[in-house]
Amino acid sequence: MEDDAVFARHRSGKMSISPTVPLATREDLSLAYTPGVARVCEAIAADPSLTRDYTWVGHTVAVVTDGSAVLGLGNIGPRAAMPVMEGKAILFKQFGGVDAVPVCLDTQDVEEIISVVKALAPSFGGINLEDISAPRCFEIERRLDEALPIPVFHDDQHGTAIVVLAALRNAARLLGRNLGDLRVVVSGAGAAGIAVTRMLIAGGVDPALVIVCDSKGTLYAERPDLAPGSEKARLAAVTNQSRVANGIEAALAGADVLVGVSGGQIAEAAIAGMAPGGIVFALANPTPEVHPTVAERYAAVVATGRSDFPNQINNVLAFPGIFRGALDAGAPRITEAMKLAAADAIAGRVADDLRPDQIVPSALDAGVAPAVAAAVMAAARHG
Amino acid sequence: MEDDAVFARHRSGKMSISPTVPLATREDLSLAYTPGVARVCEAIAADPSLTRDYTWVGHTVAVVTDGSAVLGLGNIGPRAAMPVMEGKAILFKQFGGVDAVPVCLDTQDVEEIISVVKALAPSFGGINLEDISAPRCFEIERRLDEALPIPVFHDDQHGTAIVVLAALRNAARLLGRNLGDLRVVVSGAGAAGIAVTRMLIAGGVDPALVIVCDSKGTLYAERPDLAPGSEKARLAAVTNQSRVANGIEAALAGADVLVGVSGGQIAEAAIAGMAPGGIVFALANPTPEVHPTVAERYAAVVATGRSDFPNQINNVLAFPGIFRGALDAGAPRITEAMKLAAADAIAGRVADDLRPDQIVPSALDAGVAPAVAAAVMAAARHG
Repeated sequence: MEDDAVFARHRSGKMSISPTVPLATREDLSLAYTPGVARVCEAIAADPSLTRDYTWVGHTVAVVTDGSAVLGLGNIGPRAAMPVMEGKAILFKQFGGVDAVPVCLDTQDVEEIISVVKALAPSFGGINLEDISAPRCFEIERRLDEALPIPVFHDDQHGTAIVVLAALRNAARLLGRNLGDLRVVVSGAGAAGIAVTRMLIAGGVDPALVIVCDSKGTLYAERPDLAPGSEKARLAAVTNQSRVANGIEAALAGADVLVGVSGGQIAEAAIAGMAPGGIVFALANPTPEVHPTVAERYAAVVATGRSDFPNQINNVLAFPGIFRGALDAGAPRITEAMKLAAADAIAGRVADDLRPDQIVPSALDAGVAPAVAAAVMAAARHG
Repeated sequence: MEDDAVFARHRSGKMSISPTVPLATREDLSLAYTPGVARVCEAIAADPSLTRDYTWVGHTVAVVTDGSAVLGLGNIGPRAAMPVMEGKAILFKQFGGVDAVPVCLDTQDVEEIISVVKALAPSFGGINLEDISAPRCFEIERRLDEALPIPVFHDDQHGTAIVVLAALRNAARLLGRNLGDLRVVVSGAGAAGIAVTRMLIAGGVDPALVIVCDSKGTLYAERPDLAPGSEKARLAAVTNQSRVANGIEAALAGADVLVGVSGGQIAEAAIAGMAPGGIVFALANPTPEVHPTVAERYAAVVATGRSDFPNQINNVLAFPGIFRGALDAGAPRITEAMKLAAADAIAGRVADDLRPDQIVPSALDAGVAPAVAAAVMAAARHG
């Protein structure tokens, strides 16, 4: 496999650790290690808040997975998940200056994952949960967020949701539409679909005008198979006021916006039934729900998750800056206000140069994470 | 505290993570992250042994503590332990080229520590246990060593023991003595004292001629307060054949070697009672059991744990090379043969230039870890 470009890039992994202090002389060793270090330990024992100032914890996050829902590959386990977590970790550093450590857990038991992450928490300034399957991810995130004094953020949910909101804000502005007037269909009711729907509503979309679809069709309040209290049931109760009870084609009839986060293909005929001049975000990777060249026949703005088409909706626009801002603010959690501020900052980055093929900044734009960090930090301090 | 040299060195911590692959272009992102990374994940899912080749796991260890016995500071907890674990981590990198991640656990429950480390294990190529109090450390190490397919090594025990054996080999050679003839007193029966005693015996010291002392006096087979099956009771059963049953002064009368790993002070009169021309290793930090200038009045070779006196017995001579060798060999555990090979390699590094003030190499000698790694790797492959 060595002559293959992908495998060559992954040879021996993609990251390394370096000392940031000199270790060349006896004096260096006695300052950085014993006996000098003992005084730093004693200072932190007396005042644990000094951990942020005198250890790397203040700029370090754990990227935690159980390998249960990795990319589109499914439940491949912790070892096979490591290349993705390393990739995530180096994007954290490259764009946000955040030192991120991949932690791939050899358990998929919810209680055990929660207790392991709680035990690890003193070693990190934040916890980025990654590629944990729904609905387990909801409980894991909620309970860790309640239990820990540091930010906990499930990127598959909120990272995606934040970038989708940023993109939708810009698309609506470009088309002269108000978010609150848009009829929105979200295709997919997994971790991303549910978080996207909540974020769009928090950002100004009218829940009555939203229809969420899962693999069985639209969610609506009376749908008999929805478990009471489940995330789906809670969304069904506030969305789809017109009680559309059929498949996605019925939901899309006359809709202004499609956000696909399912991986399920959507027929051209269904797209054709949308209101003219609308918005299609087909985010499944590597195969979008509808091919962008097909979507462009009907929609005025089209985005995907792929780097080889315009308007790539990519979480890397969000997570490095969000954690950088939260860590710098010393925020104990990532609030709704911080997420909304991040979406605004991402959208604002292309505000002066908005075009149908440029509603979000490039994933390589080094100015995004600092802008997001500043907005998140401000929201954390005023929140 | 900013104008203080120690605190200045620890500001923002002492380590950082860097990508080792380029992330400048869309092509870079698609190779290192999605979509390219999916193929690497699939390859590892099909053959988990590829984790070593295509992730950083093959050169990465966790430095795990519960903060229960940090340096001489005692049970200061996980947050205050972090500066020491970072220091350890950067020594791993500086001398062994091993990427080490500090993991400070928010639990001191033996069962929970074991289950957390088992859950973390897929993320690392080895586990270095650090500053965990005795006797809990013995059970934690033993059970993790049995359960995990990667090396588990409690450095406070074995790192110290390996360097002491190396130093004693060279001191004996310098003095023209055989290890098997030496009457040895080990002062301290904590993690280090017990491991040192076992290692010296494995290296050729006659157990009948060894006397171990704890804070209550000498260990001997019939001592009534030793819990049956405890580490102390097991040592007492094979050492101290002459049944010396009093304090350390009685034990030292006529002894050739003192190894102090207790922190308890030893009176000059007790040292004066040793056989002339002997060996004193007073390893307590920062205050040796007996000051080296006092010890030199009676002993031919004196060593301490301090960098400001000759013959510094420092674990950094052992752990970076031991893990480097074990990782490179793909060894599932660190065997007695690998530890003995490490001690030989450390001793051998100064074999051509042996002097009473140079029985071990300098902690700064960059040639030690590669020599240790090569010896450990050879022992792993022939073991």
